[in-house]
Amino acid sequence: MESNVIFLPIALSVLGLLFMLYKMSWVKKQSPGSDRMQFISKSVKEGALAFLHAEYRLLAIFVVIASAALFYVSTLVDLTSWMIVPAFIIGAFFSGLAGNIGMRIATDANARTAEAAKTSLPNALKVSFGGGTVMGLGVAGLAVLGLSLLFLFFLGQFMGMENYDFYTKMTIVLEALAGFSLGAESIALFARVGGGIYTKAADVGADLVGKVEAGIPEDDPRNPATIADNVGDNVGDVAGMGADLFGSYVATVLAAMVLGNYVIRDMSETVQHTDLFNNMGPILLPLVIAGVGVLASILGTFLVRIKDNTAKEPQVQKALDIGNWASIILTLIASYFLIDWMLPETMQMRFFGEASAKMIPSMNVFYAACIGLAVGALISFVTAYYTSLGKKPVMDIVQNSSTGAATNIIAGLAVGMKSTFASVLLFAAAIYGSYELAGFYGVALAASAMMATTGMQLAIDAFGPIADNAGGVAEMSNLDPEVRERTDILDSVGNTTAAVGKGFAIASAALTALALFAAYVTFTGIDGINIFKADVLSMLFVGGMIPVIFSALAMQSVGKAAMEMVQEVRRQFREIPGIMEGTATPEYAKCVAISTNAALKEMILPGLITIITPILIGLIFGAEPLGGYMAGVCVSGVMWAIFQNNAGGAWDNAKKSFEAGVMINGKMEYKGSDAHKAAVTGDTVGDPFKDTSGPSMNILIKLTCLVGLVIAPVLGGHTADDSELGNTTVKEVMVVSEDGTTTTLTDEQAANVTAINKQVTIEYSSNDDVTTAKVSSLTIVNGEEVKEEKTFTGTEEEVKRQIEAFKAQ
Amino acid sequence: MESNVIFLPIALSVLGLLFMLYKMSWVKKQSPGSDRMQFISKSVKEGALAFLHAEYRLLAIFVVIASAALFYVSTLVDLTSWMIVPAFIIGAFFSGLAGNIGMRIATDANARTAEAAKTSLPNALKVSFGGGTVMGLGVAGLAVLGLSLLFLFFLGQFMGMENYDFYTKMTIVLEALAGFSLGAESIALFARVGGGIYTKAADVGADLVGKVEAGIPEDDPRNPATIADNVGDNVGDVAGMGADLFGSYVATVLAAMVLGNYVIRDMSETVQHTDLFNNMGPILLPLVIAGVGVLASILGTFLVRIKDNTAKEPQVQKALDIGNWASIILTLIASYFLIDWMLPETMQMRFFGEASAKMIPSMNVFYAACIGLAVGALISFVTAYYTSLGKKPVMDIVQNSSTGAATNIIAGLAVGMKSTFASVLLFAAAIYGSYELAGFYGVALAASAMMATTGMQLAIDAFGPIADNAGGVAEMSNLDPEVRERTDILDSVGNTTAAVGKGFAIASAALTALALFAAYVTFTGIDGINIFKADVLSMLFVGGMIPVIFSALAMQSVGKAAMEMVQEVRRQFREIPGIMEGTATPEYAKCVAISTNAALKEMILPGLITIITPILIGLIFGAEPLGGYMAGVCVSGVMWAIFQNNAGGAWDNAKKSFEAGVMINGKMEYKGSDAHKAAVTGDTVGDPFKDTSGPSMNILIKLTCLVGLVIAPVLGGHTADDSELGNTTVKEVMVVSEDGTTTTLTDEQAANVTAINKQVTIEYSSNDDVTTAKVSSLTIVNGEEVKEEKTFTGTEEEVKRQIEAFKAQ
Repeated sequence: MESNVIFLPIALSVLGLLFMLYKMSWVKKQSPGSDRMQFISKSVKEGALAFLHAEYRLLAIFVVIASAALFYVSTLVDLTSWMIVPAFIIGAFFSGLAGNIGMRIATDANARTAEAAKTSLPNALKVSFGGGTVMGLGVAGLAVLGLSLLFLFFLGQFMGMENYDFYTKMTIVLEALAGFSLGAESIALFARVGGGIYTKAADVGADLVGKVEAGIPEDDPRNPATIADNVGDNVGDVAGMGADLFGSYVATVLAAMVLGNYVIRDMSETVQHTDLFNNMGPILLPLVIAGVGVLASILGTFLVRIKDNTAKEPQVQKALDIGNWASIILTLIASYFLIDWMLPETMQMRFFGEASAKMIPSMNVFYAACIGLAVGALISFVTAYYTSLGKKPVMDIVQNSSTGAATNIIAGLAVGMKSTFASVLLFAAAIYGSYELAGFYGVALAASAMMATTGMQLAIDAFGPIADNAGGVAEMSNLDPEVRERTDILDSVGNTTAAVGKGFAIASAALTALALFAAYVTFTGIDGINIFKADVLSMLFVGGMIPVIFSALAMQSVGKAAMEMVQEVRRQFREIPGIMEGTATPEYAKCVAISTNAALKEMILPGLITIITPILIGLIFGAEPLGGYMAGVCVSGVMWAIFQNNAGGAWDNAKKSFEAGVMINGKMEYKGSDAHKAAVTGDTVGDPFKDTSGPSMNILIKLTCLVGLVIAPVLGGHTADDSELGNTTVKEVMVVSEDGTTTTLTDEQAANVTAINKQVTIEYSSNDDVTTAKVSSLTIVNGEEVKEEKTFTGTEEEVKRQIEAFKAQ
Repeated sequence: MESNVIFLPIALSVLGLLFMLYKMSWVKKQSPGSDRMQFISKSVKEGALAFLHAEYRLLAIFVVIASAALFYVSTLVDLTSWMIVPAFIIGAFFSGLAGNIGMRIATDANARTAEAAKTSLPNALKVSFGGGTVMGLGVAGLAVLGLSLLFLFFLGQFMGMENYDFYTKMTIVLEALAGFSLGAESIALFARVGGGIYTKAADVGADLVGKVEAGIPEDDPRNPATIADNVGDNVGDVAGMGADLFGSYVATVLAAMVLGNYVIRDMSETVQHTDLFNNMGPILLPLVIAGVGVLASILGTFLVRIKDNTAKEPQVQKALDIGNWASIILTLIASYFLIDWMLPETMQMRFFGEASAKMIPSMNVFYAACIGLAVGALISFVTAYYTSLGKKPVMDIVQNSSTGAATNIIAGLAVGMKSTFASVLLFAAAIYGSYELAGFYGVALAASAMMATTGMQLAIDAFGPIADNAGGVAEMSNLDPEVRERTDILDSVGNTTAAVGKGFAIASAALTALALFAAYVTFTGIDGINIFKADVLSMLFVGGMIPVIFSALAMQSVGKAAMEMVQEVRRQFREIPGIMEGTATPEYAKCVAISTNAALKEMILPGLITIITPILIGLIFGAEPLGGYMAGVCVSGVMWAIFQNNAGGAWDNAKKSFEAGVMINGKMEYKGSDAHKAAVTGDTVGDPFKDTSGPSMNILIKLTCLVGLVIAPVLGGHTADDSELGNTTVKEVMVVSEDGTTTTLTDEQAANVTAINKQVTIEYSSNDDVTTAKVSSLTIVNGEEVKEEKTFTGTEEEVKRQIEAFKAQ
């Protein structure tokens, strides 16, 4: 059993995929409703798939170029195998596949949900949540399956290599596996940004002309942008979010595996080393927990049900909560036993900056996982507080709407900003606490615990847009108002779960990014990331600026595309007679095309900035400044994500508050009042915040750290290069004081003599324009003397640069 | 001469103050105009002074409490003298005095400018710029005088102490002098925040009801909030900004002096040590440059003049530019000779993380100063681009106004975000470049060079609000439209200089903060700020959150106060018959009182957060996490400052664009159009951004680092405690390899053996509930063996905590 534990996540993920196929066929068996409903559903599906296919064509070009670059990198250094390239392609393909499955089922489920809503609310929930389940288990199953199979394959490829120790071979395995994560996350970036631009361009465009200018309700079939709007819900909230969580899930598990490898390295220094799980316990653990999470998600979905046809939002919310918490608690219980089983009772871990290794009981890792779950839940709670109907922050915005759009906007911005306070404190506490318990491995396991039930999380997240679309289908098919009321209940719950899900997503993304950051620093072997160095500090600032620019570009893209959409809708109203009377059909396809083209065009620049900037900084300034850059991106990205998500969510619900009527200055205000119009303006500003730029921050910070980890071998500093150098182990270090006493440092102390700065001796010789420099260095790193000799030739400039780079290593 | 060079800045600052008095009496001699004009001017002055006095009463309480705390700190550690308390009080007093002088002259100059505008534009410029000059030279003169006199006094007090070396004595001097800066910056914080809240509450309140609801023009005497609005211009843009720049100026010079002391320490290791300037060249240099800057500012003011009465904005701008650049160039030329004279030809400097000290030619310091000026100018240029009329960013916002307030807001937010790109890159380049040239001393001198001509900068900045007020007086006194046209020209130029000045202010504040940060790290003697430690990383996140929360609180305060103002104005319109017909006088004083009370109440919380948070973090987590916190505040603060300032500036000018008419979609749009109304909404949102929360970031980041520097001695780690320890100098360090070879490290290498981690031996003994622990440690720090023994007693918890703290030292 123990040596075959890798087959456990494989089996569980296959089980998840089989359950997904079963659910998929069940959903498809439901009645799709009238011809009109089927027509609308088909239009949405066609628009969505057209976008996806156009997107995939563009991404294929990106994958080819990136693969070539990755292949080139793999030829440069020993530790990166060329197999990172197929891993990358498979990661990209799986991510696309997961998005595609989700999109197809979501567009199939919308009309079926509307049809089911004709009979009862419980049935409507069953169909829409069934669609969400397909999406959730598709993503989770594919993620775990892809990771496990590739890991198994790479183990077979690399673990038999000679001349390398276990740790180094495992590093090669995990570096190749990082390709899978990089592929997934790259696709997620474009899917999230492209999808976000698509959905908001359509939404803002449809609202500005339809609701505000023409005064027709949401999802009215007379609005030429309405199909594009519904397509947008799918490409943004379903495919975009699916790719995002797929990437997070994979990156979290990968980061934990990489850090697990360092735990094994630290342990190998002592006798505690056992052959349990072929020494791979800490590496396999996150994978197995993820597998168990798939099973727990399946079980959880059975609990999501309501019986009462007169149920309202709270009952639906409760049903979802029960399913969610059941799968979380199941996973947690399983984790306890898995940790107890798979990890040595105590592990030796080195903490950066501390003299001696610490003995960490395995249960500390479980406590770190608990911290992860607790903080995730608390951050969700904070998010819910700042964005929920009836709570003080939203009510403040409502009150401020009475004096116009400007005060509404100011209040909304302030709510978003204030929401960073508790979230960031919780987040800082999570880093601090899980690190104290079990180092950065603890941080990674905290993130893994948060992400373990991704299947369930995503099922809950994805049912919202399905219900939203079902409402659209009902409206456009002139179904009984009762149907719309039922889908509206589901949609409203979906809005809350979407906001809460975003809080959860950014928290787990940030923890994952930090785990990747830790893996990067450990991998490069640099002496931490010291911001008291000017180059590191400069890059911290540059990193802090990237999320701001990224958000600006995303928002601007939405603005641009929405303007185009507005012009087009206005044109159709003007030029096609009979639209407003319902006697002529608007040209829906033109609006779909505008959103598609805008999304594809506008996602390129932010995407490239995200990927190329860390590479440039790493190559030009070196490993430590790149670490500063990563930290800057994370700190600023977390802040801007929380700010934008919560401001957007709060504005949305402030607007919604007017539907039931709100008391302002002693007077009830409803839809259509001036205060409501001000609230609509706020909501429109918040749309790109919460659905485009805000959620993109997740991927920005993860991908930045992932790119750093992948190029880490190129930046040097890794011990596998030691074979090239004439290093010997230091036997003893003696310190002779001026007063005559001699202290021979203990082994432990000598092993920590790390900072005898590199002595570099340079001999220049010059011949015409060619300068040659023979450079030799002596460094003591962790108690080993490292002698290194290099010869550089070239112009004087070039040689100087190479010497500087050599010194900085 | 050389030993008395300290009298040079004293003499120059006195000269500056005398010139200020001369200008003040000249302005006062000008005709204050008709009775009506004098009445309005007096109302504004009374309102402004009433606010200042109420503010001072509140601040007096703060000063007393803070003094007591500072006194307590000074009793804890050797390096902090109790004289930091009087220095703090004097700093607070000088800051208040500078604000008071500026406020009085500004409120005297407004009616006189309006009166002068009756005759000609050149005369109006002369009077308003005369008022600005009084403000500028008052601030600069008081700053340099206060710093120089206190420095001279502390030199006399402490340099004669025995048992301390030069460097340690100077540290005590500079630590006491830091009190002056802390006092100035604390007052600046409250003045900036309070003033910012005041001015925008009045402005937004006046605009929302007056312009938008009642449809009466700006500064219309029928608007009850109009006097409060004009008072606001003075307490925010004059007193607030004056206190801000006073604080920056002092902090910049102080930081450069502290870093100069480290240069002297590094130099004292070699023979290069000379008795030039009693060894104080690098410390005195920033003070002398500041003194020369005062003189250059005086000379520059003579060049600000126009002759042509038909001049427009470009001519006025050009006159200001000539004066500004003349004083900058004069200062730069003088700096060249001062650096050559006051610094040794080459200086030995240690760069963190590098093995050996570097030899730095003194001219590198001059080049660093040039970088400071160049980057300051370029950042101003970038700011101007993003906020100026007719440039692409503002035109983008204008275009987006055609589809309503929402797209206007989205476009404005995007412009603000995008403007961080070039600014941050320039700023990172400034850090990198000036550090490469001359270490953190170079960074400090770059900031000093930027700030040297503060007198002139502030004269230019302060003339704007005076002209703005003059326009208000003209409007409320029903003067000839020609007068308003002339003051409008000055006001419009003032808006541009204000936006550019803000770019300059944040750049210099950030460089100053970094210099203070460097001084802090060097002072505490910690091993840099390594964000690969979880506690440091957590605090980096917490620090990054503070500017966001600060901005949220400031904006929310404005929102709250503006709402109150709106209700009051509406009430007056409703309850006082005849206001709109001009037959009844509104109750101006009630609106003034609302702004005053709101500003005083609302400035407390953000102020306390700024001051108390770093103290708590330092005491609870220690020196290095506090460093992480500082860095987080700086990175995030710079980003939010640029974002908010530039978004606000761009919205303002987008709105102004409609005055001359703009072409949107092939149609000319003017004031009163729907697009214009959307632009007014954007401007209202931008008001608190650019005048309250944005500029407060400057002070937040400076004060955070200053508080850190002041409490640094409490956080320990300073070498003056060495006398307590049994440390001896290491004679040699031998490394014996396993292959038998022995390497004796060179002195230089041995001197860099810093990271033999502390070996801590602990002997516990327990007696009833009292645990005693004898702790001894061996550390090698910079080639010195440091043995340390401590005994801790207390409960087990307490002892453990003490041991942890001891280990972390």
